Amino acid sequence: MSIHFNKDEGSKIKLFTPGPVYVPERVLEALAKPNDTHRSKPYSEMHQMAIEGLQKILFTKNECLIFTSSATGIMEACVRNLLKKDENGLFLSIGAFGDRWHEIGVANGKNAIKAGVEWGKPITPEFVKEELSKNKYSVVVLQSNETSTGVYNPLNDIIPVIKDSGALVCVDATSSMAGIKLEVDKLGIDVCLASVQKCFALPPGLAVCSVSDAAIEKANQVENRGLYFDFISLVKKNKVYQTPNTPPIPQIRGLVVQLDYILDDEGLEKRFERHEQLGKRTRIWARDMGLEIFPEKGYESNTVSTMKNTLNIDYAKMVSIMLTKGFRIVNGYGSLVNKTFRIGHMGEITLENLEEMLKVLTDVINELRLKK
Amino acid sequence: MSIHFNKDEGSKIKLFTPGPVYVPERVLEALAKPNDTHRSKPYSEMHQMAIEGLQKILFTKNECLIFTSSATGIMEACVRNLLKKDENGLFLSIGAFGDRWHEIGVANGKNAIKAGVEWGKPITPEFVKEELSKNKYSVVVLQSNETSTGVYNPLNDIIPVIKDSGALVCVDATSSMAGIKLEVDKLGIDVCLASVQKCFALPPGLAVCSVSDAAIEKANQVENRGLYFDFISLVKKNKVYQTPNTPPIPQIRGLVVQLDYILDDEGLEKRFERHEQLGKRTRIWARDMGLEIFPEKGYESNTVSTMKNTLNIDYAKMVSIMLTKGFRIVNGYGSLVNKTFRIGHMGEITLENLEEMLKVLTDVINELRLKK
Repeated sequence: MSIHFNKDEGSKIKLFTPGPVYVPERVLEALAKPNDTHRSKPYSEMHQMAIEGLQKILFTKNECLIFTSSATGIMEACVRNLLKKDENGLFLSIGAFGDRWHEIGVANGKNAIKAGVEWGKPITPEFVKEELSKNKYSVVVLQSNETSTGVYNPLNDIIPVIKDSGALVCVDATSSMAGIKLEVDKLGIDVCLASVQKCFALPPGLAVCSVSDAAIEKANQVENRGLYFDFISLVKKNKVYQTPNTPPIPQIRGLVVQLDYILDDEGLEKRFERHEQLGKRTRIWARDMGLEIFPEKGYESNTVSTMKNTLNIDYAKMVSIMLTKGFRIVNGYGSLVNKTFRIGHMGEITLENLEEMLKVLTDVINELRLKK
Repeated sequence: MSIHFNKDEGSKIKLFTPGPVYVPERVLEALAKPNDTHRSKPYSEMHQMAIEGLQKILFTKNECLIFTSSATGIMEACVRNLLKKDENGLFLSIGAFGDRWHEIGVANGKNAIKAGVEWGKPITPEFVKEELSKNKYSVVVLQSNETSTGVYNPLNDIIPVIKDSGALVCVDATSSMAGIKLEVDKLGIDVCLASVQKCFALPPGLAVCSVSDAAIEKANQVENRGLYFDFISLVKKNKVYQTPNTPPIPQIRGLVVQLDYILDDEGLEKRFERHEQLGKRTRIWARDMGLEIFPEKGYESNTVSTMKNTLNIDYAKMVSIMLTKGFRIVNGYGSLVNKTFRIGHMGEITLENLEEMLKVLTDVINELRLKK
């Protein structure tokens, strides 16, 4: 299994990563189609299909926007569009990507206050109540699924508490959107954002979000929003199914193909169920192997599983042996390297794909245990 | 010729637009190849090839960076990274995109001063000297090729004047990079930026730039740079051939394929010559048709030609008739609608392609004149 870049040949590695993930053939074909320009009628028709599909995925009537950026770009957009100079933002964090959002707040000169819990644990409604009582916050941001720890926050319980405080709420749903059900309008989420190289099973280069009327109204009052990530000019162009700047047209064509597949072929509820089963199966496998799950019980993600190093294995070695066998799984993130490893099971991964990989991984782990 | 979006079928329109432009088959094939993740060895090898190729295109030893954004994103990056709160930036403008860069400066709360000339005219060294004498400027930004007017600024004469003042100089080379020769190190350009859907003949979704050591040093001293467009974290990750956030991997694979083609197959000087010939041929055609060229003589772009409405034709109608014949040319930009029209001849357009289109356009124009 060559792990060198070959200009003329695509990668043959099977990705069990928490993004970028395996991209199905129908999307690869879509990427290779010639397109008209972003100011043409065919583009606008495609843009409209994309945002109407996103509204269905997110259970929302809110405006859905298309960004030429990674999800981090929309995280920066939230900070710049929604927080006035003298206001406070609460950045709830359960891992590396929560911490990064707080860093973005600080790097943009905002009053960004972080409230984090021990990695592996979720945010609880009690924790949020306690934090909200300490200060007046205009905006609260949090992750749905924290890619670094594999924890899924209990959003249905947390968000009503935040909404009660009157703050705008922004959710980074990067590694769960289109994989785990999240009802934007029911919960009143003001900005729900994601990049598409996770559960949408598209290649990276495109990020999307929904924006509530309240968020748009707020942006109108905030100074120094910049131009590139300005919600107001994005919303304005979105009304005519365009973007202010040139968008990543191949990825948008791919998105339309995937939205059609998700909504009309697989079915949205079936897709959520499949991700549930992938999560369950991985946790059963881990338990059978004697590998303790890193997240607190009841808060395990169904798109990425994080296992502790209960067997005291060299995880870096395990990952590189798996690579020689054609599978990419990933080591722990940041400070969790070698203390945990992660299996991504999102996008178009099937139970059969997962079983095939787990079989190989079981052998690799058993071999490594024998050699110790 | 259908001008509706078809999910299963690519556009058949032949683009003679100033971006996004016609994408050659070899790039479309590259987009459809599966990729490993952005933290893998194959990705880093690809990233390295991309930035080393860019250095050759730009005649520079400066760091070349990859952005998940349109060119507008890097224009915002220049403003945020290089201008301190109390410093002045001079925004030289010869058209709509120059004006936009100034808007970006203002939208980011900077002391952004615009100095523009009449549309159709270039910036001259005398004009710059005069402007620089009025104030102390830390940064001066300008366009190489102004896509809205089809004017190419005399950079070889202007930039030495700016450098003499000690200011950092940023050049938006969006519609000329890889089509018109610009020697970054010889001129001492601090940031030279472009998106790839113009002369590189790639689909949109990726922007690139070179950054000088002086620009990096300056960024280190500027507060409130944000995180998404932060030169410092981009440069840091670039040293290990990665990006801080997930990049548009398909477009980067396409870029490597195009850089190889440009440098090894067509040859860089031959590519510049081809664009020169495309510009000349279009101007000869226009003169023969009785269409006056919009830019001042001697400053006409070789990637996009702008013609006045000397024949008093309905340009909107002309553009839509051309579309029914399978060719997209474009109306004037902004306030120049119907007063000018534009033909893009950049990227992989050949003289033969151009002749084919001009033949059809000649007939359309003659027919419109008869009907008057």
